[in-house]
Amino acid sequence: MAEVKLFGFWASPFSRRVELALKLKGISYEYIEEDLSNKSPSVLKYNPIHKKVPILVHKEKPLAESLVILEYLDETWKSNPILPQDPYERATARFWRKFIDEMLLPTATRANRSTGKEQEQAKEEVHQQLKILEDELKGKEFFSGQRIGYLDIVANILFWFEYPEEVTVGKVLTPEKFPIIYEWIQKLKKVDVVNECRVQKEKYQDFIKSISVVKP
Amino acid sequence: MAEVKLFGFWASPFSRRVELALKLKGISYEYIEEDLSNKSPSVLKYNPIHKKVPILVHKEKPLAESLVILEYLDETWKSNPILPQDPYERATARFWRKFIDEMLLPTATRANRSTGKEQEQAKEEVHQQLKILEDELKGKEFFSGQRIGYLDIVANILFWFEYPEEVTVGKVLTPEKFPIIYEWIQKLKKVDVVNECRVQKEKYQDFIKSISVVKP
Repeated sequence: MAEVKLFGFWASPFSRRVELALKLKGISYEYIEEDLSNKSPSVLKYNPIHKKVPILVHKEKPLAESLVILEYLDETWKSNPILPQDPYERATARFWRKFIDEMLLPTATRANRSTGKEQEQAKEEVHQQLKILEDELKGKEFFSGQRIGYLDIVANILFWFEYPEEVTVGKVLTPEKFPIIYEWIQKLKKVDVVNECRVQKEKYQDFIKSISVVKP
Repeated sequence: MAEVKLFGFWASPFSRRVELALKLKGISYEYIEEDLSNKSPSVLKYNPIHKKVPILVHKEKPLAESLVILEYLDETWKSNPILPQDPYERATARFWRKFIDEMLLPTATRANRSTGKEQEQAKEEVHQQLKILEDELKGKEFFSGQRIGYLDIVANILFWFEYPEEVTVGKVLTPEKFPIIYEWIQKLKKVDVVNECRVQKEKYQDFIKSISVVKP
């Protein structure tokens, strides 16, 4: 059996993060697509606490949580590092990771799932948080500097930009309001491995229609 | 001026985490207590995004977020490591860190701030999550193994145990229900550096009374 296995779900940005890191680092792996409506015994066995994907299994040892997996990959396979080597730069990347996953993501989820006044307020907060990210990206090629790295992988949730009709928060993320983030997405889309790990628009549209109640 | 400065707030478990790590690692530092009702220009300058403490300033370079700071300290000062050296064990510690800060902490905050049925539900969730942590600690001296480490520092929010009258969630954390966590707290209280970084009960009681609206 493969030394590295990844249990994932195609539409999950968290699964896509791990796949992109594996590809960028050149680690060979076996991918197992999970049916989230009928989770396999492997998911329950390897991630009994959260029962969620992505799960990485390396030499039969399981790991859950995309951000935990990304750091594990970088510490275990030293070639093609995705995190900065300098401790202060690495800490700064972790600071922004927290901003994206613990500030922007919950706010955006609230904007997607609420209605009326609550939704308007959440959209305004998303707007302010994106403005902060736009400023952070100013003058850089990628979030991680001259080439794609850890923070670009983490920021893959910004591909919402691509689905303004499907995801409420996509309407906030217009090229006019956020030209730098928009430009960053265009650059990412030109990179082969990113495209291999990107959720394709048409497939996503069909998926969203099929689960219309559970908007991401 | 000191090479390492820590801006903190005495009652913040996040500030206490950083102090404990500095002491465990033997790093000398200058501590600056912040008045959160009247934040100093330093807080606004060094942490413009969140305007919160703790903030570590090392050689004039600022860092915010307790978890980010803990990893930075361990990567910059190699002696007395607080994180495990093995990548898989380190990843496992990060998995539990996420569980504590992103699952248990928000649930406990909800239990503290809500009332009636919502509070009962949140308390039940806290109970379930603590059961998972209790199982994780079973058979170990500390969360980090034979000696205090990263995960014990992160789990310092469990000192709620000590304030059953002041913090709603403290009522859930009884020695009868969670004997292993309770025993762990008794062990921690015997360690000098932990005690130096612990919020003293009497002072905390007065503080909670003074801000009775904003229960932690």
